Parts: sequence; structure tokens; C-alpha cells
Amino acid sequence: MDKYTSLDKTVANHSALTPLSLLQRSAQVFPDKPAVIDNDRTLSYRQLYQRCRQMGAALHGRGVNPGDTVAILCPNSHEMLESHYSVPMAGAVLNSVNIRLDAATLAFILGHGEARVLFYDTQWETQVRAAIAELESPPLLVAIERKAGASDGLADLDYERLLAEGDPEASWRRPADEWAAISLNYTSGTTGNPKGVVYHHRGAYLAAMTNAMVFNMTAETVYLWTLPMFHCNGWAYTWAITAVGGTHVCLREVDTTEIYRLIEDYGVSHMCGAPIVMNMLLQDLGRQGLTLSRPAHFALGGAAPPSSVIRKAEEIGFQITHLYGLTETFGPATLCVPQPEWQQLPLVERAVKMSRQGVPTHGLDEVTVRDVGSGEPVPANGQAMGEICIRGNTVMKGYLKNPDATDKAFQDGWFHTGDLAVMHPDHYVEIRDRAKDVIISGGENISSLEVEEILYRHPKVSEAAVVAMADEKWGEVPCAFVYPTADGAELTSEELIAFCREHMAHFKAPRKVVLGELPKTSTGKVRKNILRDSLS
Amino acid sequence: MDKYTSLDKTVANHSALTPLSLLQRSAQVFPDKPAVIDNDRTLSYRQLYQRCRQMGAALHGRGVNPGDTVAILCPNSHEMLESHYSVPMAGAVLNSVNIRLDAATLAFILGHGEARVLFYDTQWETQVRAAIAELESPPLLVAIERKAGASDGLADLDYERLLAEGDPEASWRRPADEWAAISLNYTSGTTGNPKGVVYHHRGAYLAAMTNAMVFNMTAETVYLWTLPMFHCNGWAYTWAITAVGGTHVCLREVDTTEIYRLIEDYGVSHMCGAPIVMNMLLQDLGRQGLTLSRPAHFALGGAAPPSSVIRKAEEIGFQITHLYGLTETFGPATLCVPQPEWQQLPLVERAVKMSRQGVPTHGLDEVTVRDVGSGEPVPANGQAMGEICIRGNTVMKGYLKNPDATDKAFQDGWFHTGDLAVMHPDHYVEIRDRAKDVIISGGENISSLEVEEILYRHPKVSEAAVVAMADEKWGEVPCAFVYPTADGAELTSEELIAFCREHMAHFKAPRKVVLGELPKTSTGKVRKNILRDSLS
Repeated sequence: MDKYTSLDKTVANHSALTPLSLLQRSAQVFPDKPAVIDNDRTLSYRQLYQRCRQMGAALHGRGVNPGDTVAILCPNSHEMLESHYSVPMAGAVLNSVNIRLDAATLAFILGHGEARVLFYDTQWETQVRAAIAELESPPLLVAIERKAGASDGLADLDYERLLAEGDPEASWRRPADEWAAISLNYTSGTTGNPKGVVYHHRGAYLAAMTNAMVFNMTAETVYLWTLPMFHCNGWAYTWAITAVGGTHVCLREVDTTEIYRLIEDYGVSHMCGAPIVMNMLLQDLGRQGLTLSRPAHFALGGAAPPSSVIRKAEEIGFQITHLYGLTETFGPATLCVPQPEWQQLPLVERAVKMSRQGVPTHGLDEVTVRDVGSGEPVPANGQAMGEICIRGNTVMKGYLKNPDATDKAFQDGWFHTGDLAVMHPDHYVEIRDRAKDVIISGGENISSLEVEEILYRHPKVSEAAVVAMADEKWGEVPCAFVYPTADGAELTSEELIAFCREHMAHFKAPRKVVLGELPKTSTGKVRKNILRDSLS
Repeated sequence: MDKYTSLDKTVANHSALTPLSLLQRSAQVFPDKPAVIDNDRTLSYRQLYQRCRQMGAALHGRGVNPGDTVAILCPNSHEMLESHYSVPMAGAVLNSVNIRLDAATLAFILGHGEARVLFYDTQWETQVRAAIAELESPPLLVAIERKAGASDGLADLDYERLLAEGDPEASWRRPADEWAAISLNYTSGTTGNPKGVVYHHRGAYLAAMTNAMVFNMTAETVYLWTLPMFHCNGWAYTWAITAVGGTHVCLREVDTTEIYRLIEDYGVSHMCGAPIVMNMLLQDLGRQGLTLSRPAHFALGGAAPPSSVIRKAEEIGFQITHLYGLTETFGPATLCVPQPEWQQLPLVERAVKMSRQGVPTHGLDEVTVRDVGSGEPVPANGQAMGEICIRGNTVMKGYLKNPDATDKAFQDGWFHTGDLAVMHPDHYVEIRDRAKDVIISGGENISSLEVEEILYRHPKVSEAAVVAMADEKWGEVPCAFVYPTADGAELTSEELIAFCREHMAHFKAPRKVVLGELPKTSTGKVRKNILRDSLS
């Protein structure tokens, strides 16, 4: 031991990192400030902190212990936000379940996660009843009632009654180890049983701090919950907004009129979501000729925003940032940090820059693109394709009770995303495809995303998905599935194939185009496996 | 092992927190942006990162190993900033030495810290020569030359030559353990040998992130180095500004004309410093009728800003935030977060609010005020006095080779600051005195700071210090030492005593006032021990 290493950790200079401490701080610094606005109920930071400690104590009183799972099935609401603190305050692990799941998947998740308690909004009582009928040891059922008596006798008790069992002045326990689990989020894979992604306190604290930092959030931030909190714990913004002492504004379901009202009434500064939310919002506000009275930041996950969306968004008052992440990375892993000089570019060129997935957040060490064969980083030339591989402290602990999947995901010391991308010379990552969605035609790789991007440029295409179709000569060829816009009734396959051939190498153009609705997962991902199956 | 704890750490999801990663990220995201402006030399983030890796490799090549100490004696400059990265990149510990120290203290520090290398600005060559003459094993001497050939043959080589020995494309090593030492900062105690405060990588990363967050720093931040970087590693802003990808603007010495020029030329948004810097700046700008073309934040450590300073600062364009910290807490431990409703208060009342030390940063768990006898928290009533005790991840490892001082500082699981304070009902801390500076008169505690604050309200008082004077009847009584302003030549002791008696309880008013200059430490703290000795 040298002169420096002999200085040990003590309770005065080392404690477990946890996002729970961020609520404690905001309750001290901003006790009377609105922490969360949920329709006609507003809770101050003092009240939020008190209710969380009280529920933590109530759960503990009901025998919930460290390492137990508490599940919740609820739209964005103050109870949902509270659970992000109360459950880990009891030492337990929060499992937020996607509200769009069918009863069978819900039953699988509650069984696999071994939920001891289920908080559920009574709107989903039918699904809950069906799901628990399949469970050997059903959880304690706690109803979140928007109207008193809304539960039809299924619940053991309601949320407020359980809350009342706890001491409002209870203290809470910091985890003994920051590597302890804080939450469990099941991925909505397109095939097979969902996998349970386990988050740790350390990563949740760091994700909260860095996600607040990358979007310049401050105590003035008013955050509108257009993103479901059950999605990767709201990309860690359930904790990040609290970290800065901002205000959470809840939104139960995506309703563009309500979104506009909330933005204007509360001075919303930040929001996140999928492209579909942004698109609906732009269409509806655009039709009504509405603009925002002050600009709001919109962080967009998923498909890259095309230039038409960027222009429309900016006209209305949204500043768009494209980001990329996975359940396994606490949400955002990279974001497309705008460079000042991009402002001088023509819109189409700027959109090309902005559509990339970008650069890592501060929570990660490295986001690299590695050759699928050799595992070596590909050259940063915007051409060579490889798999996005990630390392850092905002990566999950692993998959619950699934050592094979965990080992596979962490093979060779990297988290393997399964996303294929190129690294640009400016070290911005750009996704080309999911590994399993690449089409191999005559030995050439065709990115399904690239073909989809061309299709999206056609003014009458609303949604497009491209998959591989077996072909005797070429092995595989691209086949497109397209859902037209409202005024695209007369759109034909021939027109779209010709359009693609005009804009890209002919071998990449789809051989076949099927018009109609696209099958999707509960989180809105197109189920390409079903499209592929429909071709065989 | 339960279902959650079986998920182990891997290199993909766990790595040592270190502020070195923040430079790596900014070099990737903002390669061509000015990272540091040092007179006529500007380094981009790409260049800064390259020079740091290169110097890290050069140090390694010279036999510097993990756990070794590399000292630097240099004003704010790009070399000083580089050392905050290059030295830990070599696994070594950076010891930034106060440039105002005498040769004997410098010799003590270099010997005690076992410096293997000393970077020094040739302006201090005389002191260095005298100091190393006292050392048994002198360090490798590396001259930082502002003019070529400025070193008079003392140095072994110059900084740029050493740099050239390293590989500019060298990689750097993350510490194996985030608890590893990153820097060593000697406190300028008012008595006895300085103590060597050891910082850890974990705390430095967290201090950087939280100090950036509490002052709303972003990639647009332009930070002027009015604070010496050798002071607690510039309160961790050496790392924090880099974290957000802001620009460091160096200032070699405090010169108000130069400060104003830099603020205006580079659009400075943030700066930190001691009240003396703020006061000089306000006086000089005020005299010349100069104001800032855009507002700048000034974080003020040390004595609380009186209302006259706040008014003058706001007229000129500075937004003042008062903060409090110690070398042992990586600089800022608390800051006086402004509450929106304070803006409605009359200036004098607002100044009372703003003069408090405030609330903890996100890096700390608790900043409490505890009864000196019982160790219990005092009531939050703004009256009961106790010692400020701190816990959290941005507290030092301990004092180098000084287990007694370390144990005493961490007694009962708290870092004991030695500062006496009250806790206000809004949970803002306000310092009343240093424990050893309290005056006990007839069994009553008199805070020397409280008396000093009254004295500072007198328009002709420039500096004031109050200490205990022995008294037969009362045990102790307050004695004031006052340095008048330039137009205060005719100020008398009687006038000041009468002024104090008019504004505070008579028993608290000084019995004696001595006019003249005040003795100070190299960091500008008044040496009250010398004042006390002068009375006995």
C-alpha cells in the first residue's frame, strides 16, 4: 500500500450513488415548488418527497424487502412518478410494465419478475384480472383509482389506503451497494419472450445527471411527459427532472390538443418521444395554424427526422434533437449534438447532419462501431458498416434470470446493440440497420433503413418497412410494405418501385411493394418478422 | 445471492469514474472548438486532448508511475490546465502548489508530497532554487517558459521538450479503481504545517458534473479563470468546464482592465473568485463607468456579499451567487440557490437571503449543523449554533501521511469543517464563525463574523477582522482590526465603536479598534492568530 492508497473510504466520504438522493435534495432546496402536475393535482417537492417516503414505509410494512419486485401498470401520473422513488426507498426493484401489453404477456412478466405487489390503474382491471388468473402466487393488488370505487372488487386495497399505512416522516434507506438493482424493464422484442433488463442505482444516478446535462436542463425546466414513464423509466427523466428541480407535467395519453394546451399553460420547455408523437403533433398544430409562444426542445428517439419534419417543427417552435438508445442503456446512449456551424447549412444538408444518431452521453465511456467479423473498430469514413458496441456506467446489470442472453449481450467486454452503423469522420454514429434486418442480395449488403428512407421521401408514403424476400437468383431481394397517407389512396406499387429506382442503385430498389397497414409491437415498432413470414 | 445480485459487474457496464473521460468526450464532440485561450495561444479540444495524452506518455517515459506525485507551480495557463489531465493520465497525482508561498513552505510541500517532477513557471525560479536546495531528493525540474531561454540553467529541461518525448497518439489509462488519488492540495492553514488534502477520481468526476450543473453551464459557457487553478483544482472547474465543452479563458494575474477586456472580447459567461477580486473589479469598473454588454455569473466564495456589493455588481452586469466550500470538499459544498420570490424583495432583504451559504450541491449527501457537544443536529431555527458537518462523495480521501488529522476530521462518520453555523427554517446554512474564532464573553458566544459584518456596513471600512481579547471581568471581549478605505484617513476607533453600539447589542461591540493593515496568508485569509498574539 503506497502513501495514497492507505486512505480508506469512510461513511463521511463515500456513499452509494442513487437517484433517490436527488429527490431528497430538491425537497430541501425547492420545497414549495411544483414537482409534478397531474391534471388537477399538483404536488410540491415537499409533498412528493413525503408521499414517497410514506409509501416506501408502507411497502416495507407489507413485507416488501430488498431484492423484491414491485410492478406497476399505469399511465404517466403522479403515482407512477412516486413509484420511481418509493419502491427503491423500500429497497425493492420497480418493474414498470407497458400498458399496451396483452394479458398473457403481462402474466409472463409478473411471473418472471416475481412481483410481490402490483400497482395498477383500474382502467386496466380486465387485463390484470386475466393475467393474475394465470399466476401461481399472485401479487398484492393495489388499485390506482381515478374515480373512487372504480375497482370492481379485484384489488386488495387502493393506493391511497396503502399509502396511509406508512409513516409520512419515515426515513429511507440508501442501498448498501450502488450496484444494487433499482428497476426492471422488459424489452418488447419482436420475437420470443420479453427479456427483463435490470438497472442499477449507480447507472440511474449517472443517467439522470448526464441526461439532464446534455439537454441543458435547469430548475426552470418544465418537462411534459409525452414519453411513457414505463419506457426505460422515461429514459431516466423520471429522475433527471427531479435532479435539477424542474417540474414534471403528466400526460396520460397522446392527445395533440391536450399537449398544446399543457405546453402553453405551463410553459413547457422540454419533451421527449417517438417520431409518431412528433408527427401527429406537427400535423394537428399545422392544420390549425398554431405555433408555440416560446420554443420547446423535443428529443426524438427512433427513426431519424426527415428535413420536412425538421422544417415544420421549427416553424411551429420545436427545437429537435435526434437521439438513440436502448432499454439496455437506460434510454439515451447517443445524441446528435448540434454544431454551431450547421445553422449556416441549407435545410436539406442540415437535416442530413441532424438525422445521425450522434455522440455518446457523459455516462458512457465509448460508443464504437466494430466489424462484425473481426471485432475491430471500423474506419471512421461514413462507409464501413459494423455493429454499435457500447461500454460504460449507464449500461444495464444484465437480463434477469437469463445468463445466456446476458453473456451474449456482453460478449468480448462490449454491450452488443445488434444495430448496424457507420462511423462518420466527425465521429458521429449513423445507424444503417438492425443486424437481423440487413438484406443480402448477390453478396451485397442492402440496408433496409436506406430503402425506407427513400420511400419516406415520397409525399404519399406515411409508413414504410423493407424486409428481405427470398430470390432464386440473388439469394435475397428487398420487399417493401407501405402504408399510404390519407391522400394516397391511388398510390401504386409500380409508382413506388419507379421512384426508388430513380433515387438509388437499382439493385437496392424493392422488387415488390405491398400496400396496407403494418403490424406493430405495443411500443409501436414494426414487427418485421411478421412481414418476413408473410412472404414465405 | 438473490435473482438481482447474481448479475455481476463487467467491463461493459462498469468502469472507474474519472474526469479524464470528460476531456475524451469533448475532444470527440467538439474537436475544433477553442478549449483554452491563453493570451495569444488557443488550443482546440482536439489539440488539448492530444497534448495531454502526449505529456502523460512523456511522464510515463520518465518513470512516473501510478501513485507518484507530480507538482506544478504555475499561474493559470494552458500548461496548468493540461496538467490536470496529463498527470492523472500517467496514473500520477497532481500537486498544484500555491504560487504565493515562500521557499521554505514550498520545500516542505515538495518533500512531504514526495514530488518526482516539478513543472514550474520560470517567474518563480528564485523560489524554486531556494526550495530544492533543502530537498534530499529533488524532483525532475521542468521549466514552463513564457520566453525562450527564461530559465537560468536550473531546469533539467523545458515543458515543450518534455512534451516532445511523448507519443501524441498515445492512449491513456483509466485508473483501475475510481477511489485512486487524482490530486493533492495543501491547505494554507493559519497555523502549523500545511496539510495535504487528497482527492479521488470518483469525487473529481462527480464534483465536475455537479458544479457544472448548479451553475447551469452548457457548451456555450465561456469561463474566465479569475480563480487560481491551484486553489482546490480551481474548485473542480478545471474539469467541469471541459465536461460541458465550454471554453477556458486563462488569466495569469488579477488585473481588472484585463478582466474587463477578456469578458468583452470572448463573451465570458461565468467566473468565480474571492470577494477581494469582485470588490476590485466593481471599484475599477464603477470608477470608469463601464458595464458588461451581456450579463455574467460570478460565484463568490468566502465572506458574504453585502447589499452594497450586490447592487453595484448588478448595475454593472454581474449575477452573484454566494457559495461555501473547503479544500476538503473539492471546493463548493453549498451554494445559495436563489429562489424566484427573492426577486420581489427589497435589496437589503434580498442581500440577507443571498448572504447565506445555502444548500448542498448534488455531490454531497448531507450538509448538517450539529451541536458541538451532543453531535445531534441543531433545530432549523436560524438561532441554534453548531458545527457544519458534511457527508458525501465529494469529500476528500483524507490528509496525506497524517492519520491523526484524518481521523479527527472524519470523527463520528462526518467531515468536521470547524465552521460554526445556524440552520435556517428554509434549510439554508449560514456560517456564524470559525469554531476557533468565537469570542466567549461573560458566558455568551459572540460571532466574530457578526461583528465584522456590522463594521463592513460602515462606508469607510475596507477590511475588518475581529478577535477575542482577554478581559478580567468578562473573560473575553471583542477587539477589531480595521483597514480603512482610501478616503477613510480620518476614521477613528471611537467612531467605529459608537457605530457598532448603535447597530448591535452593546456586549457584542468591540472594546478596542486597531487601525492598520491586516496580516494575511498566501491565499488572502486574514491571519487571526497573529492578531490574537499581538494582543497578549
